[in-house]
Amino acid sequence: MPSDDDISAEERLIARYFGPLATAPGAFGLHDDAAVVTPPPDCDLVLTTDGVIAGVHFFPDDPPGDVARKVLRMNLSDLAAKGARPIGFLMSIALPPGIGESWIAAFAAGLGEDAAHYGCPLLGGDTDHTPVSLSVSITAFGAVPHGAMIRRSTAKVGDSVVVTGSIGDAALGVLLRKDASLVKNWRLSNGERDHLLGRYLLPRPRNALAAAVLHHASAAMDVSDGLAGDLAKLCRASGVAAEIDVARVPLSAAARAALAADPALIETILTGGDDYEIVLALAPERFAAFRAEADKAGVAATEIGRIAKGQGAARFIQDGKPLAFARPSYSHF
Amino acid sequence: MPSDDDISAEERLIARYFGPLATAPGAFGLHDDAAVVTPPPDCDLVLTTDGVIAGVHFFPDDPPGDVARKVLRMNLSDLAAKGARPIGFLMSIALPPGIGESWIAAFAAGLGEDAAHYGCPLLGGDTDHTPVSLSVSITAFGAVPHGAMIRRSTAKVGDSVVVTGSIGDAALGVLLRKDASLVKNWRLSNGERDHLLGRYLLPRPRNALAAAVLHHASAAMDVSDGLAGDLAKLCRASGVAAEIDVARVPLSAAARAALAADPALIETILTGGDDYEIVLALAPERFAAFRAEADKAGVAATEIGRIAKGQGAARFIQDGKPLAFARPSYSHF
Repeated sequence: MPSDDDISAEERLIARYFGPLATAPGAFGLHDDAAVVTPPPDCDLVLTTDGVIAGVHFFPDDPPGDVARKVLRMNLSDLAAKGARPIGFLMSIALPPGIGESWIAAFAAGLGEDAAHYGCPLLGGDTDHTPVSLSVSITAFGAVPHGAMIRRSTAKVGDSVVVTGSIGDAALGVLLRKDASLVKNWRLSNGERDHLLGRYLLPRPRNALAAAVLHHASAAMDVSDGLAGDLAKLCRASGVAAEIDVARVPLSAAARAALAADPALIETILTGGDDYEIVLALAPERFAAFRAEADKAGVAATEIGRIAKGQGAARFIQDGKPLAFARPSYSHF
Repeated sequence: MPSDDDISAEERLIARYFGPLATAPGAFGLHDDAAVVTPPPDCDLVLTTDGVIAGVHFFPDDPPGDVARKVLRMNLSDLAAKGARPIGFLMSIALPPGIGESWIAAFAAGLGEDAAHYGCPLLGGDTDHTPVSLSVSITAFGAVPHGAMIRRSTAKVGDSVVVTGSIGDAALGVLLRKDASLVKNWRLSNGERDHLLGRYLLPRPRNALAAAVLHHASAAMDVSDGLAGDLAKLCRASGVAAEIDVARVPLSAAARAALAADPALIETILTGGDDYEIVLALAPERFAAFRAEADKAGVAATEIGRIAKGQGAARFIQDGKPLAFARPSYSHF
C-alpha cells in the first residue's frame, strides 16, 4: 500500500469523509476524474445546479450538517418541481482557512444522511481552498420519462394555480434570525419561533410529490425566490397572467401569528425567498387527484388562484385590490 | 411584454449574456429551473466538475474571456481523458462587488467561442454575488458507449505509458508570471516566454484525441496536478507501478531552454500543475496506431515508460537513478 506521504491532504480528506458517501457504482469511490451514469431506458436526464456562499445564503455559524443538507435540498427541490426522480449529484466545495476537519466531518455526515434519505448519492466533486468565504455548489441529476419534464412555460389559461406546503416561513425565519426581539413583537410562542427558524435553516423539498407533479401539472417550478416573483417568472415563460387570492395562500400557524401582529409582513411572506415549495398550474379537474396524492405524502396542496390571459403578470388580490410590492422577487444577487 | 422593472438584475444579466450561449434545445434558453439532456442511445453519461477561484487558480487581471475558456477547458480535459464526447455543461458563477457588465460580457464571449468550438453548449447555471473572490464552477457532461469510459484503475503490467503534448510548460509559465526576471535567467526568447505564459493562461485540452483514447487506452487520466503525482494516482488506483524515463518526457523548446539554464527545474516540470495533457497506459502494440491518430490531430504522443508490478509508485528515472521529489503532486488545496 502507498504510504500516507504519497497521498495529498486533499486526497486524504476526500477519501475519509466523502468517499463513504459515493455509494453509486458509477462514482468509482471518487477515485477517478469523472463519474458515470447509465441513464434509465427511455428517460431524459434533468440537470440543475444551485449553491450557497457563507454570509450570503447561510450564516457562518449554522451547523455544518445543516449547511450540507440545505444546499443538497435546494437542488432536490428543483428536481421535485420538474417531476424528476433523483439520480445523484456532484459537489464542489471551497474551504477557507480555519475550517477544521471536525467541520468537514459534520458537513459530510449531514450530506450523507440526506443523500441516503432522498436516494440521491454523491457521484463526484471538486475540493479547493478559497481565501475567504466558504462556498458549496451542487449539480444534481434526475430522471423523467423522455419528453415529460414539467416546464415553466406550459401553463394554460384556465389552469388552477396550486402551491404546496406553506409560504413565507423561511423569509420570516431569517428576519427572526437577524433580530431576536421580533419574537416578542410578533407574539410568537417558542414553538412558532422554532418553526420559522427551522424553515429557514433547512428546506423541506417536496420530492415526495414529484410523481404527482409529473402526472398532473401543466407547468411548475420551485418557489425559492419568493412566490410573487417566481409565479411571475412562470407566467412570463408561459405568456399568461395569474390571479391569486391572497387570503387562500397557505400560511403556517406561526406565519399567521406574525401577520396578525404586523399586517405589513404580507409582502415579506409573498416575496421573501427560501420557501422551497412547488407552485404549479394544472387543469382544475386534476386538483382533487393531486391533492389526494399530496395528502398521502403528508404535504398540503392548496389552490390559490387561476391562470388568466395576459402577458406575464402575477396579480395578488387582497380585499378586492391588487397588492403592489416594493420588490416583487427576492434575489440574493 | 413585461417591463424591465418586473425582471430582476440577475434575470437581465443571464438573459443578455448567457442566454445566447444556451443553444441546446434542452437548455430552454435558461428560462427554466433545470435543463434536459436526452442521452444518446446505448451511451453512458460521463460527469465531471472543476472550478476556479480568483487568486487561487487564475490572476484577477487575467482577461475575462480567457478565465471562462480556462475553466471550461479544465472540464473538457477530463472528458477527453475518459474518452468521452462533450454534450454540454452547467456553470455556477459567483461575482464579487466591482465586477462590471463589461467583464461579464467579455467572459461570456470567451465562453461562447469555446462552447461552439468544442461542441459543448451551455445547458444551465446559477449566478450569485459573493463578498470577495470571484469563482466559477463548471459541471460538464460527455457520452461514451455503455461501459466504455476509460478509467484510472485498469492499467496493466506491461502497458506502455504515453503522454500527449508537452509537460511542464504551464508550471514554468506561472513562475514567469510571478517573476518576469526569470525570462533572463532562463535565457528565453520572447516567443519561448509567450509560449510558457500562454500554456498557463489557457489549457489546450486534447478532445481531438478522445476517440483514440477510447479505442486504445487501458487506463487514462488528465494531467492537471503534475505528471508525477497524477501518474502515481493512476498507479495506486490500478495497483501497479510505473517506470518513467525522464529523458523521454516530452518538453517544449521553451521548457528545454529553461531546463538547460536551471536543471533543478525538472521537479517543477514533472510535479507542477495545469498541464491539461492526457497520460495513458496502453498495450505496447497499440502505440503506433494511437500515435498515428494523434499525428492526424496535430498532437504529439510520446511513449515515456512502462507499467510494472508494484503498489502505486511512479518512479522517474534520470541517469539511471530515481528522482526524489520534495512535493510529488501539486495541489491547489
